[in-house]
Amino acid sequence: MAKERDEKAVTPRSEDYSQWYQDIVLKAEMADYSPVKGCMVIRPNGYALWENMQRALDSMFKATGHVNAYFPIFIPMSFLSKEAEHVEGFAKECAVVTHHRLGAAPGGGVQPDPDSLLEEPLVVRPTSETIMYAMYAKWIKSYRDLPLLLNQWANIVRWEMRTRLFLRTTEFLWQEGHTAHATHEEAWEEVMRILDIYRRFAEEWMAVPVLTGVKSDSEKFAGALKTTCIEAMMQDGKALQSGTSHDLGQNFAKAFDVKFQDEKGGWQYCWQTSWGVSTRLIGALIMAHSDDQGLVIPPKLAATQAVIVPIYRDDAGRAKVLEVAARLKADFAAAGLGVVLDDRENLSPGFKYNEWELKGVPVRIEIGPRDVEQGVCVAVPRVATRELREGEKRQKETLPLASCVGALKSLLDDLQKALFARALKFREEHSYRADDYSAFKQDIEKGGFFYAHWCGSAACEDKVKEETKATIRCIPFDGEKEEGRCFVCGAPSQQRVVWARAY
Amino acid sequence: MAKERDEKAVTPRSEDYSQWYQDIVLKAEMADYSPVKGCMVIRPNGYALWENMQRALDSMFKATGHVNAYFPIFIPMSFLSKEAEHVEGFAKECAVVTHHRLGAAPGGGVQPDPDSLLEEPLVVRPTSETIMYAMYAKWIKSYRDLPLLLNQWANIVRWEMRTRLFLRTTEFLWQEGHTAHATHEEAWEEVMRILDIYRRFAEEWMAVPVLTGVKSDSEKFAGALKTTCIEAMMQDGKALQSGTSHDLGQNFAKAFDVKFQDEKGGWQYCWQTSWGVSTRLIGALIMAHSDDQGLVIPPKLAATQAVIVPIYRDDAGRAKVLEVAARLKADFAAAGLGVVLDDRENLSPGFKYNEWELKGVPVRIEIGPRDVEQGVCVAVPRVATRELREGEKRQKETLPLASCVGALKSLLDDLQKALFARALKFREEHSYRADDYSAFKQDIEKGGFFYAHWCGSAACEDKVKEETKATIRCIPFDGEKEEGRCFVCGAPSQQRVVWARAY
Repeated sequence: MAKERDEKAVTPRSEDYSQWYQDIVLKAEMADYSPVKGCMVIRPNGYALWENMQRALDSMFKATGHVNAYFPIFIPMSFLSKEAEHVEGFAKECAVVTHHRLGAAPGGGVQPDPDSLLEEPLVVRPTSETIMYAMYAKWIKSYRDLPLLLNQWANIVRWEMRTRLFLRTTEFLWQEGHTAHATHEEAWEEVMRILDIYRRFAEEWMAVPVLTGVKSDSEKFAGALKTTCIEAMMQDGKALQSGTSHDLGQNFAKAFDVKFQDEKGGWQYCWQTSWGVSTRLIGALIMAHSDDQGLVIPPKLAATQAVIVPIYRDDAGRAKVLEVAARLKADFAAAGLGVVLDDRENLSPGFKYNEWELKGVPVRIEIGPRDVEQGVCVAVPRVATRELREGEKRQKETLPLASCVGALKSLLDDLQKALFARALKFREEHSYRADDYSAFKQDIEKGGFFYAHWCGSAACEDKVKEETKATIRCIPFDGEKEEGRCFVCGAPSQQRVVWARAY
Repeated sequence: MAKERDEKAVTPRSEDYSQWYQDIVLKAEMADYSPVKGCMVIRPNGYALWENMQRALDSMFKATGHVNAYFPIFIPMSFLSKEAEHVEGFAKECAVVTHHRLGAAPGGGVQPDPDSLLEEPLVVRPTSETIMYAMYAKWIKSYRDLPLLLNQWANIVRWEMRTRLFLRTTEFLWQEGHTAHATHEEAWEEVMRILDIYRRFAEEWMAVPVLTGVKSDSEKFAGALKTTCIEAMMQDGKALQSGTSHDLGQNFAKAFDVKFQDEKGGWQYCWQTSWGVSTRLIGALIMAHSDDQGLVIPPKLAATQAVIVPIYRDDAGRAKVLEVAARLKADFAAAGLGVVLDDRENLSPGFKYNEWELKGVPVRIEIGPRDVEQGVCVAVPRVATRELREGEKRQKETLPLASCVGALKSLLDDLQKALFARALKFREEHSYRADDYSAFKQDIEKGGFFYAHWCGSAACEDKVKEETKATIRCIPFDGEKEEGRCFVCGAPSQQRVVWARAY
């Protein structure tokens, strides 16, 4: 048993934060490395989380009038160079398809058939603005066709040399919304509507508090007028950009000739937006909540919300306990809760506890012969027992079997709130005002968000990045207007911006 | 108005069946051609149908213990040649990635950067057996890890020169299930369990009757021991293979070293299955049910199940009718029905009727001022009015507003059944026994399924294919044992097989 536990033990965060993250992803079977360099395999535990994220986001998109569609994975190479800034940002580390057939190789095996060389190479989409807007130009004719509110769930490829599971891989999954509007005002409303959906999803579903704001010009999307974003803080104090919503202005509309005839019969270019979140969110969720025992999943996104572990010493006890446990499972399932009854033989309850803690199941239900006699079970939330002891009323709880479903639901609700509160407290404790640049250069080493005045110049931004690896995460929307001086060059500034090192 | 109607008119089936199909796909805005040769764009109307298909299938897979995962889109070229038959079948018309970066081209624009040439080319997955089983070899260690029951929803690329929207495109969407078992018996049970899910999905959701059976060796999946399939008949009498479930035996397990330690400690190769259906099903659905007025979607898969068209002559009538129509819409929506209220101005009811018929919405609800006074509305099913007049009780129906929700549900149920019955009748009327090969050579011209004796030889099969373009669609599971003689060579045969021309 000792050996089994060791195999599943996770490196403590204090020892090696990076290794801790990788241990959790691999040992909780969220993802795995694949034989293709830079590409991951998303295992069932990870994919179930993605499915729940998709379901929640998709219904928020649909409730605001968006519909889904699907566009080709391949983009003609020439498309990527149509929008001037876009080519700089995206026409670089791409997977390039040059042949469409394999043939026998001279020395045996196969090789790309030289006769199948494509006239124009195809790029595997690094993002779909160009291929989608070529279609928009064909579909949009009149103001009556606007707004066009499409979203796509798809796989994306951006060649990466240094990869980290979920956070940075050559292939990842995402959604990308692409809308077209008659006026800039409507487009901007859309940008902010989506950003608010992203914020609500992060906070209410993932239990991860986020800052919302605008990116500086050097950090914005290649081809956008303005990029807005949600930024989360991880447990090492680094920032993780978790979603972006772009005001594209008319840049792509002009490059791809996306025009509409207005009510007076004149032709105008559309105003466009694009926005996306990806499987990166899984990495954010893991790094925001998990601990040295393993993964922590917020109840609202957990496929398995509770695991029932029966406890017994002999066959008589086993029969009695399993009967009640099976009934409990049926009651939970009937109430729409995701539940597993772990009735595997030859494994101790302690081994099972460790395994389910590693996998992040929000609540464990223990039930033994004495519990059955007393008509109760014991509920143990994944986090409260370990880390929310002080000031938290929930630890182990004895629940009457008769009212167990309601009690479990309420416990899951409390856990969801507790996780958000803990993450928010962590962020607040690691957010600072920085007025002195040389002090900042030392303080940034310990991580956190630093609110500092900035003159708005790319020069100061570059200098900070070069000297400290910190970047401007956003110019926050809720930042107070405050007269001040750039903490680098001393020029006047009206507002503090948020600096941090980032994933 | 006349012009608008013409633009939306569909070529009649009798005039040009191929053009009719293409007209429906394009004019009902199910899909469109893209700037990338051979790749389609699935538009919101088509994608909504795919989402409903996914939801139904996914829950059937999950109810039988399968879970979803995601594997890389890229496969190292060498993997495709590991399984001897598989390389023949798949290592051919593939998209081949040879570079991972674009760079500036000498004459301006961009080109694949020669310095980014990959050591080993990557193939965009034409199917995922190889990349998945390389992982299975790593994950499966013991009989306790079996069965492994994974499914993947993904995009697939097989280079096609002659394409047809949904039916044959270079990129398409699908699900592919891949399972590993301890015994051949268990694997075969899985093959048949999935085939039955496919049959039930086709018949109960798509309202398309299908034959189930085994493929002949020349038509089976490259690398499988045995391929089972569901085959549907289209309205031109051609067959469309709509789903396959393969018994892979130990072929891939041996090629990729997928082994497990059994209870006695010995090592054995796993027994594997794979199975899939694709966006091709959308093409099957269109060709099975649609008519010269446009698309027909079975109610259980329709995103919009009913459209309410208000009818009025003046503002007073308009206000009165729209108020009731909005309440009706809310009632339908509250009952979980997909409903649209078409309150667009400046379009005649007749124009709206045509448009919604073209888009295949199962039921139209008409409501005018007199209906409001009488407390009723009029329901018109998409198909019964047009083609099921004889012997069908349903045509236009006047429904009391008070019991409208229940009545609409029942009408949708009836329509679902009527579509299946009509398709089954059509198949039965176009299924024949063929005993004389020279008569068959003429009869096959008019389409249909031909049940004929076959000796089992590839030679006879090839001869028929060459001379008539007909292939063996399947050796049906429910075929009666019957002594007979091969209709080509006269050798003895035990059972009739199904011949047809196919998509």
